[in-house]
Amino acid sequence: MSVLIVGTTALDSINTPKAKNPRLLGGSASHAAVAASFFAPTRLVGVVGGDFPQSHVKLYASRGICLKGLERVKDGQTFHWHGEYEVNMNNRRTLNTVLGVIENWQPRLPGDYGQSPYVLLANIAPSIQLAVLDQLSKPKFVIADTMDLWLNVALADLLKLLKRVDCLVLNDSEARQLTEDDNVVSALAKIHKLGPKFVIIKKGEHGSILSGPSGMFVAPAYPLLKVVDPTGAGDSFVGALLGYMASQKGGNIEKHLRKAMIHGAVVASFCCEGFGLVRTVKADKKAIRDRVKHLEKIARF
Amino acid sequence: MSVLIVGTTALDSINTPKAKNPRLLGGSASHAAVAASFFAPTRLVGVVGGDFPQSHVKLYASRGICLKGLERVKDGQTFHWHGEYEVNMNNRRTLNTVLGVIENWQPRLPGDYGQSPYVLLANIAPSIQLAVLDQLSKPKFVIADTMDLWLNVALADLLKLLKRVDCLVLNDSEARQLTEDDNVVSALAKIHKLGPKFVIIKKGEHGSILSGPSGMFVAPAYPLLKVVDPTGAGDSFVGALLGYMASQKGGNIEKHLRKAMIHGAVVASFCCEGFGLVRTVKADKKAIRDRVKHLEKIARF
Repeated sequence: MSVLIVGTTALDSINTPKAKNPRLLGGSASHAAVAASFFAPTRLVGVVGGDFPQSHVKLYASRGICLKGLERVKDGQTFHWHGEYEVNMNNRRTLNTVLGVIENWQPRLPGDYGQSPYVLLANIAPSIQLAVLDQLSKPKFVIADTMDLWLNVALADLLKLLKRVDCLVLNDSEARQLTEDDNVVSALAKIHKLGPKFVIIKKGEHGSILSGPSGMFVAPAYPLLKVVDPTGAGDSFVGALLGYMASQKGGNIEKHLRKAMIHGAVVASFCCEGFGLVRTVKADKKAIRDRVKHLEKIARF
Repeated sequence: MSVLIVGTTALDSINTPKAKNPRLLGGSASHAAVAASFFAPTRLVGVVGGDFPQSHVKLYASRGICLKGLERVKDGQTFHWHGEYEVNMNNRRTLNTVLGVIENWQPRLPGDYGQSPYVLLANIAPSIQLAVLDQLSKPKFVIADTMDLWLNVALADLLKLLKRVDCLVLNDSEARQLTEDDNVVSALAKIHKLGPKFVIIKKGEHGSILSGPSGMFVAPAYPLLKVVDPTGAGDSFVGALLGYMASQKGGNIEKHLRKAMIHGAVVASFCCEGFGLVRTVKADKKAIRDRVKHLEKIARF
């Protein structure tokens, strides 16, 4: 079944201690859609400006991603994030953000997009996530991702959103901020009370945690000898996760979610091995399968 | 088979944001020996001063721990650590340390202790760990634990030790410090080159990682809704781990190590739920088995 993904389609300029990479294809929806496209037909809803390179559009198309929902505002500027990583690659700092065409965007779902069964409201303003949610009719599974920025500037909208999604994905520091609770386990219980039946906490190199009706699941991260650029790893994780869910027929949703998190961890590991989407797009089903098998071996006792 | 544990037998005064607890039974060998005693006959090698309460000795004895190797220096002072935890319980600060009788201690193994098959050189000065190692004859499996202090003040001794042990246990920040490598995965490879065939990295609430000849294993931590005092959790982890190893007959050592880490995580979780050893000693085999089963459920996919 198909996956609908709304989020940012951006240009990322990323500095690391070793390199500067200007205007890479980035954004939450870009990473998530490419990751989902390994597993399921993927529909992208986003907006770009006149400055968005055609080569980036071609990359989406080469993945078979449906682009009917990709708007282009000819006289607008594409959302641009400029950031840098410290030596250990865990701490990042935003140098500059240009919202551009994202700022006044009113997303409109084309054709039958409103009937998409699996929907990812990737990281973008909660008001935009809500606007997409309003255009859906009976989706099977809706995941929302978010970030600390929205906890700071759009908490009311985010709380509205949480009442209406099946699953929230966020990282551990965001979970602590949202609940004002330093203990991740008790924070999970508090997040469930805000609405979502499922909560997934991303912990980077430490893996991820699922909390749902039948308890918790702890997924390892894929161990990498070298991290080149972690930008988009969380988006890749959740995109692959939802793509995997959409590729499964029937069965138990929590069982699927566990395997989906493992597939998410694997696609995120490819993302971290190159700048932007450079490494991700070089992966294929066999490479993903091999790393999933490796993770199974790593986690077995 | 029996387990020999050498390390500190101490008094811990622990402040948390919520309470002050003076002169608790603490020390690496105390926590490790109590943890090991759930699984195997345990021998404790340590030194205390005249101020060490008899009630603490009784606690060891009540666990069936053999105390032939516990020296008492009547006119000496017991090693005393005074520390405090911040609100999130992850950061701790040493307020004061009195080395006391530890400072000039020359450990001597009594009777047949030198023939102990499973040996834990728990966290203490590497020179003391080496002195014990010199008195062993053909142990089956020797684990060394350490801490950042010894990396700073006794690195040469520690490096000598690493060439002679089967397994090193340390936490992730210590692994980074020892190897000057921010990536835990590549740090593991560097630590193997220093000697140990097996390396285990403790990551607190994020679990632990084993690296050995047949690859890596990632063990989850036991999820706790409330952490009262994490002091001694790492010692409990490694003590239970070695106790479990000693309780297994034949079979594959790496397979046993994986299960041993799970049992270590469980006993460490009990340790965190109370000050000092208060909660640990209230656990029993059934409570441990229940949490192991829970961890199996949490990690399965």
